Amino acid sequence: MIKNKKVNAAILIIGNEILSGRTQDTNTSTIALWLNSIGVKVQEVRVIPDIEETIIDTVNHLRKVNDYVFTTGGIGPTHDDITAQSISKAFNLNYKIHKEAFMILEAYYKPGEFNEGRQKMVWMPENANLILNPTSGAPGFNVENVFCLPGVPSILKSMLGGLKNNIVGGDPILSHTISLRTVESEIAQSLTDVQNNNKDIEIGSYPFFQAGKLGVSIVIRSEKKSKIDECSEQILDFIKKMKIEVIDR
Amino acid sequence: MIKNKKVNAAILIIGNEILSGRTQDTNTSTIALWLNSIGVKVQEVRVIPDIEETIIDTVNHLRKVNDYVFTTGGIGPTHDDITAQSISKAFNLNYKIHKEAFMILEAYYKPGEFNEGRQKMVWMPENANLILNPTSGAPGFNVENVFCLPGVPSILKSMLGGLKNNIVGGDPILSHTISLRTVESEIAQSLTDVQNNNKDIEIGSYPFFQAGKLGVSIVIRSEKKSKIDECSEQILDFIKKMKIEVIDR
Repeated sequence: MIKNKKVNAAILIIGNEILSGRTQDTNTSTIALWLNSIGVKVQEVRVIPDIEETIIDTVNHLRKVNDYVFTTGGIGPTHDDITAQSISKAFNLNYKIHKEAFMILEAYYKPGEFNEGRQKMVWMPENANLILNPTSGAPGFNVENVFCLPGVPSILKSMLGGLKNNIVGGDPILSHTISLRTVESEIAQSLTDVQNNNKDIEIGSYPFFQAGKLGVSIVIRSEKKSKIDECSEQILDFIKKMKIEVIDR
Repeated sequence: MIKNKKVNAAILIIGNEILSGRTQDTNTSTIALWLNSIGVKVQEVRVIPDIEETIIDTVNHLRKVNDYVFTTGGIGPTHDDITAQSISKAFNLNYKIHKEAFMILEAYYKPGEFNEGRQKMVWMPENANLILNPTSGAPGFNVENVFCLPGVPSILKSMLGGLKNNIVGGDPILSHTISLRTVESEIAQSLTDVQNNNKDIEIGSYPFFQAGKLGVSIVIRSEKKSKIDECSEQILDFIKKMKIEVIDR
């Protein structure tokens, strides 16, 4: 494992159903939290429609400017599932039957059930590495730094564990949250001062409404626990002076 | 109103909290559903960090290739709220106190409460149009085809209604969903045939698991109701022949 190196990723959500608002994407959060835990920071997320040219252009851009790219959606059996053929074109690879994937699905289904529709799911870029699917059989795939996962959240979630050894991350990105009974504008100036004193730390401020009450969560993020502790102390210091109630820390 | 014209938009989600996975974005779905209802189609969504240069570059790209751009997040009072100053730079406009916004917030807060932190929220690109906020006072703003909204979902939602007259959409995008007790691979071939016969219609197929049972939702989208009806009939036709149970139509 390379440590102390910043490792970045992009997430590419492929699917008209997200753009139309019909479906609420939850995969971004699932993938981002998992990546943080193995030291990979998500730089950018894009949601794009099921249009081949758009998928090709976007993948070819993102894979050049990120260490890793994770796509979700478009690897099922229907006509609107065009991720595998688009990725093949993006990498100038043949789009063909993946023998190992074929054997996996042939064994997964009952005799006679591995029909033409299902066989579409084993067409992939030539020599792609499989990403095993413990939930519903049909594997995802990986070409160079691009990892293609399904759109169904429960299936996607079940496939991430097996991917861990394929991703070389940096130090895990740690975070600490301090929740306060206040409003942002009360602490804005003091928080700015702390941020200016700790330029290498990411400090976020997020208002919330809970059980009819206003509050603010301050989130401190860094690869270094000592830096987070230091920063946290500086924040709690001004909070104490301002006599603001700490809900959670 | 211009009708029968395709009108497109991009949504730009600004915020480290979405990229870290800490917060689940729900604003995309809210904005997209609202835009569909007024005949605007979301072409692309991007999520980017609170980095000035990234915001400027992304806004300047998206506003050129879309009829409208909607940003969310980064217009609050804290140090990590940098959307207004970034948009000013993107448009080469002065970043200064917006007099009307100042008067709104001065009236909104109790005497003495309109402190320096809160005053940050009235700094905007020069001559921006305000987007009124019926929930918490602080307005969003609009410059040319870019509309800047807050990140807090309940506040954002309350501000969309007042925006309707600023957006010139095409025909509303209609959709019809047929839910079936089947799996995608069973209907994949027949659905492809219907799509091939109706190339100007968007047909999506989405598997679901509900109460332990598998199903598929077919979503037909178009500006023309007659086209949707026609397409829907063709689908129900093959469904009937295949003796697949229709859950909802």
